[in-house]
Amino acid sequence: MIPDAVVARALFNPRSIALVGASGDENKHASLPQKYLRRHGYSGEVFPINAHRDYVFGERTYKRVSDVGRPIEHAFIMVPTDAVFDAVSDCCRAGVPYATILSNGFAESGDAGRRKQDALLDVAGSAGLRLLGPNSIGFINLVDRVALSASEILSAPDLLPGGHSLISQSGTLIGALLSRGQARGFGFSKLISVGNEADLGVAEMGEMLIDDPSTEAILLFLETVRNADGLAAMARRAYEAGKPVVAFRVGRSDVGQQLAASHTGALVGSGAALDAFLRDIGVVRVDTLDALLEIAPLLAGQRPPAGRRVSVLSTTGGGGALVIDSMGSHRIEIAPPSDSTVQRLADKGISIKPAPLVDLTLAGTNSHTYGTVLRELMAVEDTDLVVCVAGSSSQFRPDRTVMPIIAAVRDGGTKPIAVFLTPQADTSLGLLSEARIAAFRTPESCADAVRAYFDWRAPRSAPIRNRLDVAISILTETASTPLDATIAARLFAALGIPMAAERVLPIDAAEIDAGLLETLTFPVVAKVLSPDIAHKTEIGGVVLDIGSAHELERALRRIVEQAARLRPDARLVGIQVQPMLNGLAEALLGYRRDPAVGPVVTLGVGGVLAEIYGDVAIRPAPVDDATAHDMIAEVRGFAPVRGYRGLPRGDLDALARAVAAFSSLAFLDVAEAEINPLLIRAEGQGVVALDALLVRDSRHAD
Amino acid sequence: MIPDAVVARALFNPRSIALVGASGDENKHASLPQKYLRRHGYSGEVFPINAHRDYVFGERTYKRVSDVGRPIEHAFIMVPTDAVFDAVSDCCRAGVPYATILSNGFAESGDAGRRKQDALLDVAGSAGLRLLGPNSIGFINLVDRVALSASEILSAPDLLPGGHSLISQSGTLIGALLSRGQARGFGFSKLISVGNEADLGVAEMGEMLIDDPSTEAILLFLETVRNADGLAAMARRAYEAGKPVVAFRVGRSDVGQQLAASHTGALVGSGAALDAFLRDIGVVRVDTLDALLEIAPLLAGQRPPAGRRVSVLSTTGGGGALVIDSMGSHRIEIAPPSDSTVQRLADKGISIKPAPLVDLTLAGTNSHTYGTVLRELMAVEDTDLVVCVAGSSSQFRPDRTVMPIIAAVRDGGTKPIAVFLTPQADTSLGLLSEARIAAFRTPESCADAVRAYFDWRAPRSAPIRNRLDVAISILTETASTPLDATIAARLFAALGIPMAAERVLPIDAAEIDAGLLETLTFPVVAKVLSPDIAHKTEIGGVVLDIGSAHELERALRRIVEQAARLRPDARLVGIQVQPMLNGLAEALLGYRRDPAVGPVVTLGVGGVLAEIYGDVAIRPAPVDDATAHDMIAEVRGFAPVRGYRGLPRGDLDALARAVAAFSSLAFLDVAEAEINPLLIRAEGQGVVALDALLVRDSRHAD
Repeated sequence: MIPDAVVARALFNPRSIALVGASGDENKHASLPQKYLRRHGYSGEVFPINAHRDYVFGERTYKRVSDVGRPIEHAFIMVPTDAVFDAVSDCCRAGVPYATILSNGFAESGDAGRRKQDALLDVAGSAGLRLLGPNSIGFINLVDRVALSASEILSAPDLLPGGHSLISQSGTLIGALLSRGQARGFGFSKLISVGNEADLGVAEMGEMLIDDPSTEAILLFLETVRNADGLAAMARRAYEAGKPVVAFRVGRSDVGQQLAASHTGALVGSGAALDAFLRDIGVVRVDTLDALLEIAPLLAGQRPPAGRRVSVLSTTGGGGALVIDSMGSHRIEIAPPSDSTVQRLADKGISIKPAPLVDLTLAGTNSHTYGTVLRELMAVEDTDLVVCVAGSSSQFRPDRTVMPIIAAVRDGGTKPIAVFLTPQADTSLGLLSEARIAAFRTPESCADAVRAYFDWRAPRSAPIRNRLDVAISILTETASTPLDATIAARLFAALGIPMAAERVLPIDAAEIDAGLLETLTFPVVAKVLSPDIAHKTEIGGVVLDIGSAHELERALRRIVEQAARLRPDARLVGIQVQPMLNGLAEALLGYRRDPAVGPVVTLGVGGVLAEIYGDVAIRPAPVDDATAHDMIAEVRGFAPVRGYRGLPRGDLDALARAVAAFSSLAFLDVAEAEINPLLIRAEGQGVVALDALLVRDSRHAD
Repeated sequence: MIPDAVVARALFNPRSIALVGASGDENKHASLPQKYLRRHGYSGEVFPINAHRDYVFGERTYKRVSDVGRPIEHAFIMVPTDAVFDAVSDCCRAGVPYATILSNGFAESGDAGRRKQDALLDVAGSAGLRLLGPNSIGFINLVDRVALSASEILSAPDLLPGGHSLISQSGTLIGALLSRGQARGFGFSKLISVGNEADLGVAEMGEMLIDDPSTEAILLFLETVRNADGLAAMARRAYEAGKPVVAFRVGRSDVGQQLAASHTGALVGSGAALDAFLRDIGVVRVDTLDALLEIAPLLAGQRPPAGRRVSVLSTTGGGGALVIDSMGSHRIEIAPPSDSTVQRLADKGISIKPAPLVDLTLAGTNSHTYGTVLRELMAVEDTDLVVCVAGSSSQFRPDRTVMPIIAAVRDGGTKPIAVFLTPQADTSLGLLSEARIAAFRTPESCADAVRAYFDWRAPRSAPIRNRLDVAISILTETASTPLDATIAARLFAALGIPMAAERVLPIDAAEIDAGLLETLTFPVVAKVLSPDIAHKTEIGGVVLDIGSAHELERALRRIVEQAARLRPDARLVGIQVQPMLNGLAEALLGYRRDPAVGPVVTLGVGGVLAEIYGDVAIRPAPVDDATAHDMIAEVRGFAPVRGYRGLPRGDLDALARAVAAFSSLAFLDVAEAEINPLLIRAEGQGVVALDALLVRDSRHAD
């Protein structure tokens, strides 16, 4: 369903445009596109469509698109919600290949609107009409001078074309980024508001931009992901084509996000899943709006870096400290120059200290010193990026620090450079932008971009499908049975996850086989077993550290009494008895199908800490052992089992294998799952899961 | 030592200036001040001092200040380091009241430089000459047109005066903030580079700005605090005078910070202590450079707020989400409009949803709707601040959203407002700035300023001195004794902290009184007692869960053997035996004298988590119970004992009392102390300290 290059031309650079609902009332937004097309030099034909007036702004109108009698390559629909269906139908009759719909009141407004949107899709689909929107503010193609949008940003007299293209789920951000870019000398090729993405969405627009010779980098402003597979395919192809894809995402906070209500997977909202997904497919994610504009030159011609080591060169201690501080919280290593670098510079008559900040001070604020030190820092192999800082001189004396940076890059320096200038230095920022060097207006956006660059990963290829036959057969044979912890445990064991040994005792203590009790090695743990009770502890359904057969009998009676009193509805299957095991730490493994991006696996420290500190690692599932190791490294709470402060190390290889095995749930009909806790034992002693929970996919749920 | 108003005039607005070391070589920084004074309209007399030339830039020079033969009110000294002493001495002879020293090579460069700086202070002090610097780039007084500085930012043709004044420990930041402010229409009254603060520092300059009628807000760019008492006094007086003091601090990251090497207090670097100190004295601390410029109007005429509830009004969902997301991580409550607000607006014909983001959409992007809703949100009492967001229209149509904001404030709205405009909208930002409404260029700086406003506290008055007689006498009578855990325990008990019961057994197991063993209630814990062993666990000096007298004897032997083998140098005083106690959670209390800001108390969760997550609360000591409760609320890891997810609540009142009691160490000759762990038991059951450590102040240390 991806339009080919020829029809792409008709989408972004149509020879003729119909403005459906064009208004002559300057206070109405429907009056704007006609004005803006003309103002920004559109050279094709424009046909205002208005049933009630003969002329709009002196141009002859038509009652309907089908009345024009000439081929229309693109229709821009601005009529009230309830008139959109007729307008789209009319476009179909007239053989229009593309329509962009500004009108709102569709899927974004609720179920009734969604039905209206589906009706549009049906009629357009049958006629081969492709839709952008509804609820799209339009698009702006600066290279070909097609400003087909109602964004008031187009009141600006003159717009600079360039190599960035933006796809935005928010119409406002088209204007926000265009105007901010213009003020900084960043030109755009195309800016596209995809609105509700009923038909053409982020993925399709991205595919077209990959093929667009005037687009060098693709910027995304995302509120959600509606087509994860398409986005993944687009991002992978963009990576291969060497066009960086950079995303800024809103919806990072809890407000407005639906909190996952279910027991499993509730650790993280889908925001974290979305971030994990974007990283997994090779998208660079920035957290500051400025960095979305500024980062592209840092990525151009680059591949994901090997390390996270930065040299910082500055003419000002205060300015250098600003950037270093902002980078401080991002696991970035500020690397002092090596002894040999210091020596080579000394041989050239330049004395620097082997400190993390290479501060040339006012005395070194000249082209020769700055340029020589920078070239040296770019040439060494023990760092991955150079941050260049310049002070007040950069506002009026670009020759002192800015020109040497440009010369060093021009002369073949290939190490990525990020520049931060302390003053408002528009001329210098413009010079750097022209030279395609990443320059940042604030220390915070500079640090964010450096962090984003270091977090950049090549798109991950999907791991090889594990052997899953046994797991699948367990799911199949128990398809009609309510899932309880023992079935979950069998399934996880089949996937290769070590499960704690267990016995299931009957509910009625009188039925317990005395011989069986004698085979138990105390102390043990007893837990109620019921498909209806997820939170066992809360109803007193778990008793720890039971030292003898006698204590066990008492514990069983207490558990059954409590369950009968607090959850009289629950079906009790039995009492699960496990040895009381100890480990160095506890992990929690979660799995769920995220509505936006599909299966994700989550790893955190057991107990409530993962939630309290938001300290979890999340990845699209399945993951391989190497990715599982990356996840373990990300969880700060595992510091003790990584050997922090000389504490005994845990068996992290076994943990990684368990995470990878658990993540192969992605191949099964499972909606949610959790292992909590997974005991992490000392190195060489493995891990063991103490409790498991599984929810079938709704297609198979009981 | 604070200059009075008359001499302040001579500092900032001198009638005559000597430029000591003035150069005619335009490539030298010493050539700049003369040029800049003239360019920016200085109306007093300028006397270039140069021993080698008769004229500099056409103005007659003098060999020395004392040769001028006219009263010099301010000398600007730019000579090489080793000539500064003579220049200062000459100023003393000439009766100059103020000298600003640009030259560097003093305390900032090491011990030799510090001695040179002390020599300057001696000679200046004896003659009554006050010094700014050395290592100061000078000051800029825009109101009176005195640009006495070498900052190349002064190459700008025209500078806008205004109501902000800046005191900076970094010379570069004078230029950075001045130029950034100018681009935004923020004028400055005075910008002062204090350099090494040998004599006049942040505190003295702040005191002068409090008395300066043209200064409305005092901005600080801090790298450290050199005079905590002076800064505290200044901040308190500024608060009383209604002049907000806003600080941005570098040195937040670990790089370049000296890590505290000692056992206690190592949880936090002095950066956190500095932040706690600033909040304690009523300074508003921002974390983004943009917010330092932008926040002042938000604070003008305000007092610290009661709650953290925000209304967000927007014409764009994407723009609103940008700010809400940025605020998301700052414990700020986004409050939806109440039912009665929704109803009152419905009565006026405006329909809004009771959602956290009040999104008027394109349809509500007009003066009437925006103004009416804003006035309603400003009038209600259930929120503390309104964030106003406007979309693309704000670039060219300020009438739609920006003018209604200005009108609502002009008509007497007193609730604080923070405005974020999504596009580059310089005209609108200028209009808001003129109307003294806080407007922000990025969603991140807007959120940071709102967070900073909510974190603002009135300067705290020092708590009443606790009764400390017993504690003092313990310190006195044991002054010649090495401090061990039992003395520490006695001292903490005297301060009112519940300590675990303990017996001290002799090192030699043969000497143990059998009768004493029988009085113990098992299980117990045994710990080696030695003034030389801080990390008992690491040498096997702690044995837990000892069930009987027999086990205890074995444990004692093992401890003594281990200690003898691993720490043969250590003096063993005895073996401490305590009951084995359990609680709901463990806390760690730390105390130390921070080199910059003095005594601080730190509270975190016990174990390694506080360190791993940086999850500690810190305050200048002493604190009262209310402040201790604030600290407890700040520590995320205490969520379980606050009743998170229905877990049993801990005795937080007892914890707060223990924190307050512990913090009164500030009145004693104690350098460092730690209680780790302090067991938190269930509500009503109190807290109990299991281990304590104390280091005397060096003046009394053994």
